[in-house]
Parts: sequence; C-alpha cells; structure tokens
Amino acid sequence: MTIREMLEAHPQPTSGDLDVIVRCIETCIDCAAACTSCADADLGESDLPEMVRCIRLCLDCADMCDATGRIVTRQTASDAAVVRATVQACVTACRACREECERHAEHHEHCRICAEVCGRCERACNDLLASMD
Amino acid sequence: MTIREMLEAHPQPTSGDLDVIVRCIETCIDCAAACTSCADADLGESDLPEMVRCIRLCLDCADMCDATGRIVTRQTASDAAVVRATVQACVTACRACREECERHAEHHEHCRICAEVCGRCERACNDLLASMD
Amino acid sequence: MTIREMLEAHPQPTSGDLDVIVRCIETCIDCAAACTSCADADLGESDLPEMVRCIRLCLDCADMCDATGRIVTRQTASDAAVVRATVQACVTACRACREECERHAEHHEHCRICAEVCGRCERACNDLLASMD
Amino acid sequence: MTIREMLEAHPQPTSGDLDVIVRCIETCIDCAAACTSCADADLGESDLPEMVRCIRLCLDCADMCDATGRIVTRQTASDAAVVRATVQACVTACRACREECERHAEHHEHCRICAEVCGRCERACNDLLASMD
Repeated sequence: MTIREMLEAHPQPTSGDLDVIVRCIETCIDCAAACTSCADADLGESDLPEMVRCIRLCLDCADMCDATGRIVTRQTASDAAVVRATVQACVTACRACREECERHAEHHEHCRICAEVCGRCERACNDLLASMD
Repeated sequence: MTIREMLEAHPQPTSGDLDVIVRCIETCIDCAAACTSCADADLGESDLPEMVRCIRLCLDCADMCDATGRIVTRQTASDAAVVRATVQACVTACRACREECERHAEHHEHCRICAEVCGRCERACNDLLASMD
Repeated sequence: MTIREMLEAHPQPTSGDLDVIVRCIETCIDCAAACTSCADADLGESDLPEMVRCIRLCLDCADMCDATGRIVTRQTASDAAVVRATVQACVTACRACREECERHAEHHEHCRICAEVCGRCERACNDLLASMD
Repeated sequence: MTIREMLEAHPQPTSGDLDVIVRCIETCIDCAAACTSCADADLGESDLPEMVRCIRLCLDCADMCDATGRIVTRQTASDAAVVRATVQACVTACRACREECERHAEHHEHCRICAEVCGRCERACNDLLASMD
C-alpha cells in the first residue's frame, strides 16, 4: 500500500507516531476488504442460515473500518477526541466480528482469515489509542 | 425518507424503540449529506484558508454519520456493544463539527445550517444511547 | 432533507438545474438507506436462500448510491465526465436491484418498497443525465 | 493485502480471471486511500486556493474507488452489467484525478504519488473490463 509514502509527503507534521498510524490505517483498509469478502463468501455457503450473524457483523465491521481508515488517514487539523472515539468504535466492531468469525473458522477458511485480520486491526487500533495518551 | 416504512416491513422485531431508531438513522443520513455539502461549499469560499478545520471535521463527520446510519439501520442479529460504540463516536464527530461550524455560522449560511443538522444528529444519537440503557 | 437549503447557500453557482440535482441527491440517499435495510431484512427472512441475489444487488446498489449522492452533492470544480459516468453506473445498479426486488415484491413488503425507491432513483438519475446534454 | 487469500477461500467460483480481479480490487483500495490522503495533504499546502480542483477530484475518486473495490470484491450472484458500469465510472474518476494531480506533481510529491496510483488503478480497471468481454 502507498499510504506510508503519502503520509511522508504530507506538508503537515504527522499527528503522532508515523509507524503506529500507518499500521492502523493499513489494517483498517485490509480489514474492511476482508469483511466485505467474508460477508459475500458467507452468502455462497450451504449453511447460510447459520452465517446470518457473521454476515451482519462483517458488514458493520467493514463500514466502521472504512470510516476509521479515512479519519485516521487525515492529518490536517485533526481532532483527537474524534480520532479516539472512532478508533475505539473500530476496536469494538473488529472484536465482535472476530469472535463470531472464530466460531466458524474450522469449517470456513474465509472466516479463519477474516478473524485473523480483525484481530490484527484490533491490535493496531489499540496501539494507536495507547500512543495517543 | 423511506426508512420508517422499511423498518416496519422488517421480518424481525426492531432492536429497540422504533421512533428513536428511525430518528437516529434519518438524522445521520441528513447530517452526512449536509457535511459533504458544507465541506464542498467551504472549498468555494474566498476565505478558504480559514475554513480548513471546518472542511476536515465535515469530512470526518460525513464518514462517521454514513457508517452509523448503516449500522443502526441493520436490525438482524444486532450487537449492542457495536451499535453503542458507533453511535458514541458519531456523537463525538457531530459535536466537533457543530462547534467548528458554529464559529463560521454568521458569515457562512451553509455552516449555520450544517451546525444545526449536526446538533440534531447529536441529540438523536444521544436519545438512542439513552434508550439502550 | 436539508440538501436543497445547503445547495442554495453554496457560494458557487449550481452546476446545472437545482431541482433536478436536488432530486437526484435525495433519491440516491433514500435509495442507499432502503437498499441497506432491504439486504438486512432479507437476512431475517425464512426463505433466505432465495434472497441471496437480492442481498447482493442491494449491497451493490447501496454502495453505488452512496458514492453517487456524494459526488452529485459536490458543486465546486465539478468534472462533467465524472458526474455522468457515476450517475450512469448508479442507474445500472438501481435497475438491477429494482428488477430483483420486484421478483420478491409480492411476498416481501420491504422488497416492494425497495423496488419503488430504486425506480425513483433510476428516474431521477436519468433526468440529471438528460439535463446535462 | 489479504483479498487474494479471501477470494481463494470463497465457496463460489470466481466470476472471472482471479489475478485480474485481485489487481483491480487492490488498486481500487490503494487508490481510495491515496486520494483521501492527497485531498487532506492539499488542505495543508500554502497554495491551497490552487488545489481546490485537486481536492474535489480526489474526494470523488476516493468515493468511486471505495464503491468499486466493494462491488468487484463480491463474487456471489454478480451482475455483469453492474460490475461493468461501476468499473467504467471508476476509470473515469481515476483519469480525471490523475490528470489534475499530474499538473501539481512537480511541486507536490503527494500529487505525484497519487497520480501514479490513479494511473495504476485506471489500468487495472481497464484490464478487468477487457477480461469481461
């Protein structure tokens, strides 16, 4: 992904630790895509009725990760309270989605991968929150 | 907007008080549009350099309201923790955007309107949070 | 919705016929919400396996209407080719979603409503395209 | 990015050439992030009034790439007309954004990078369109 290069070329000083910010953005972007794909893969499974909660939480997580990736990307005139509340909501969405995907990880490889990506995103978001204190 | 009719036609019982949920969704949708328009109107103003923080917070608020509107709309297999964290982040984004827009409300009518819409969305989100306790 | 007031307060002249633009934005926003809700309602239906294509097309239509609503909302430095291609893609997404929802309109009221909203959005988008020639 | 692994784990056969689809999704995702960042970097530049068209086209391109990345990611019950119209609109948005960013590439490194990413996304989208014929 090009986001690190973009932030290095930004005219304003980064709003915090560049490595931590880049990892948060990259995992949000990756997690949004994985969740969009996992919800769609669930729709193609033969045990579809058992996957309803997984689809729902993947759709929520994709929407929250998309918004968080965009908001954390922006470095001009950042509002720390907005960034913090957004990243906290993203942690909650990733955790709920990861826990549901883990329940299906043994029989659906896409759920196993999606749970892993959600876990990575949770950690990267928590690292960003810790760095903001 | 059609969202009330849609939720009334939903096969599952609504996850809470229908009026409160509908008002939260409708104000999120309206606020996302107002913020997208306000950021764009700012770009056309002659005092553009003074509007940078307003543009930034409008873009964040639009993204957060979009995600919140979608997540609160979904009624199947809702996760209360995800809904709550999302709506809280939306309140924070609306408040920051409203406060900045209020600073420009006297000389830019679009900021005055946008501040009002953000305030309505804040209240509707807080009402939803109160109804979930 | 507040979008008409916002566009009337915009510092730049509107990029075309205000009524046509406002109707396009409002129906895109309404259609995005209806499609998000219809996909979610489908997930709660007992004939879920028959609703897979409906869910898929509702998710696509919601994403395309969201992007189109945002792009048509922006009035500063518009690029007519971008607006036109976006609105055309929105027409295609609405038509596909409407046709699928119509197939389920008799047994699912949310599909009947969603098909109607998609049809309105199609027409409003086509009206905008016609006004741009 | 994890999207290739996710598509390989999908229960349904891919709707076309996997390599071409993955490259289209990955460049859409990367381009959405680069454009979000470029619009934000423009807001921090001292020649901000000259960057208004660049900001506008970056915001449009980010929205269109986000929608396209999501729609191309979905493999269940794909509608070829919807995919084609979406990807065509994405090509148009990327081209307009790339041409504007190229005008600023010499004095703003973030515009040079963003123009490159838009060009890659344009080509990946055109490759997907060619593979669908």
